[in-house]
Amino acid sequence: MRGTVLHGTGDVRLEDMPEPGVWRATDAVVRVVASCVCGSDLWGYRGIAPVEGPKRMGHEFVGVVEAVGSEVRTVRPGDFVIAPFAVSDGTCAHCRNGIHTSCERGGYWGGTARAGHDIDGGQAEYVVSPFADGTLVATPGFPDASAVPGLLTLSDVMGTGHHAAVSAKVGPGDKVVVVGDGAVGLCAVLAASRLGAERVVAMSRHADRQALATAFGATDIVATRGDEGVAEVRDLLGGGADAVLECVGTKESMDQALHAVRPGGRLGYVGVPAGGPEFPVRHLFGNNIAVAGGVAPVRAYFDDLLPAVLNGEIDPGRVFDAEYPLDRVADAYTDMDNRKVIKPLLRP
Amino acid sequence: MRGTVLHGTGDVRLEDMPEPGVWRATDAVVRVVASCVCGSDLWGYRGIAPVEGPKRMGHEFVGVVEAVGSEVRTVRPGDFVIAPFAVSDGTCAHCRNGIHTSCERGGYWGGTARAGHDIDGGQAEYVVSPFADGTLVATPGFPDASAVPGLLTLSDVMGTGHHAAVSAKVGPGDKVVVVGDGAVGLCAVLAASRLGAERVVAMSRHADRQALATAFGATDIVATRGDEGVAEVRDLLGGGADAVLECVGTKESMDQALHAVRPGGRLGYVGVPAGGPEFPVRHLFGNNIAVAGGVAPVRAYFDDLLPAVLNGEIDPGRVFDAEYPLDRVADAYTDMDNRKVIKPLLRP
Repeated sequence: MRGTVLHGTGDVRLEDMPEPGVWRATDAVVRVVASCVCGSDLWGYRGIAPVEGPKRMGHEFVGVVEAVGSEVRTVRPGDFVIAPFAVSDGTCAHCRNGIHTSCERGGYWGGTARAGHDIDGGQAEYVVSPFADGTLVATPGFPDASAVPGLLTLSDVMGTGHHAAVSAKVGPGDKVVVVGDGAVGLCAVLAASRLGAERVVAMSRHADRQALATAFGATDIVATRGDEGVAEVRDLLGGGADAVLECVGTKESMDQALHAVRPGGRLGYVGVPAGGPEFPVRHLFGNNIAVAGGVAPVRAYFDDLLPAVLNGEIDPGRVFDAEYPLDRVADAYTDMDNRKVIKPLLRP
Repeated sequence: MRGTVLHGTGDVRLEDMPEPGVWRATDAVVRVVASCVCGSDLWGYRGIAPVEGPKRMGHEFVGVVEAVGSEVRTVRPGDFVIAPFAVSDGTCAHCRNGIHTSCERGGYWGGTARAGHDIDGGQAEYVVSPFADGTLVATPGFPDASAVPGLLTLSDVMGTGHHAAVSAKVGPGDKVVVVGDGAVGLCAVLAASRLGAERVVAMSRHADRQALATAFGATDIVATRGDEGVAEVRDLLGGGADAVLECVGTKESMDQALHAVRPGGRLGYVGVPAGGPEFPVRHLFGNNIAVAGGVAPVRAYFDDLLPAVLNGEIDPGRVFDAEYPLDRVADAYTDMDNRKVIKPLLRP
């Protein structure tokens, strides 16, 4: 079978790999139906995060179960499953607390499980899922092909945008600012709107993303950035936002986000810190700004979000604005890196 | 009249000052019945925070109103009043949001109001309160002398300990750790216990403070600190606390607090950052640790805490373990600095 490997800056390749198999009693073999490229994949691709040797890529995918180990109980061959971007055993204290990303035995696709073994990447034809019961979520019934993009967003971007909004305690009547117009930022707009925010300000300079933000419920668009953007937001909201959702992870975006929060307001952040700053404790202390978020435990949000996608309440699949066959995965990276596309969907 | 002035490291004096008066239509003149020394007063006294010229001291006091300006509506001469440690106009957007510490025109006792004028210190015989309606809280009826210490804690330490607990969302069943065994930390123990925490671990090395923590509801005492203390707490709570309340403000105490939080847990912090670190964003991100707190808007907590003190539900006045006449204010600083007393009460 074939899978995607990042070898270094700008060097991503589809390669032949060993065939999948049930290696452990808790494994499931999944035939990938769709996967995609994440903004965080670009940190390595761009050389911002160091790449130490070849790395299997892809942490978002949906597919069909082909085989399961003897201890697997909740998914069966033929099931359509969604893979959260983190592998989790579902049984440890952290999983029981709903923080599956801190699972004592889990890890990330393309990485190494805390239990010790390597984990496959999702930009591939097949994936062996460890801890299948704790990790994979089967849909009720086999979904229509049209539902695939929306379901795929539950692997990461929709759950992550939702995590930003939940962490910032977005609720009815809130004035919310979203920093970042990538797929996660756009999903954060959708999540904030769904949770009842009265105003949702999307900060974006790109017409296509502005349009999707508006379709997802943004009430205002601010195209300026940095100090200028902060000033515009503060004017618009009469002094700052109740909640700001940071969905980028750079020093600049975090500064912008923090200064858009009103005293007593909340920052929800999900952008992977990419050499970003530490939080400025005196600014937070003096202004009583709460900070919450982190690597999103999207597995915990399926009970809420899966029905919302299946019944059409939300349509986060619209973040995929281009499809590529898997053998053009390198082009998908290039086009996303160049901001030619918001988020590329890959079909094996 | 006489008031307390800090001139430099270790140099605090009671001095003659101009008599008080109603300078502005929103002022009230308060005859101080009791005030006290705060742990944060010691930052300047110890030379940790620079002292730039003589500074009037004291931000916690209770007293009796002697005169009011023509626009004052909610307090009258003869009223017994409690002064929150921040002056607030009660009308600006931040006050309406309950973040009185960010009041657009207010400030701190002994400092300068954002409206422009200097503000008296509370370790004095009299205080002129600006924005009397927005700042001072009158008790229902004139309290017994025995109630004075408890009411005085609402100026700062009880409200601040409560803010730590509220910021960390302490609720029924939670396992809570309190870092800091000063008056604020002890009040945080009391607040966490009152809010329903199942376990409250007080980190303290001093027998007198351990005893008071236990009286305030601590279920466990941990006398070790740093990495050793964190390890002990994690053992005790099976992996870390749901909520940690940081009530010191040093780099060491913040590190200790952050590492005692379980993944997905909350840090509530109220210790004034004294050259402390920035928050380590990658640790917070990777573990989904929420951080909230800051300079406590204690004015917002009177509706909840004043009845609790008056009806005897809580007795935070026990943090005052020594009384000094105001002319011995220098001794009060010395004894608090030497940890001979937890918190000294001053009587003019």
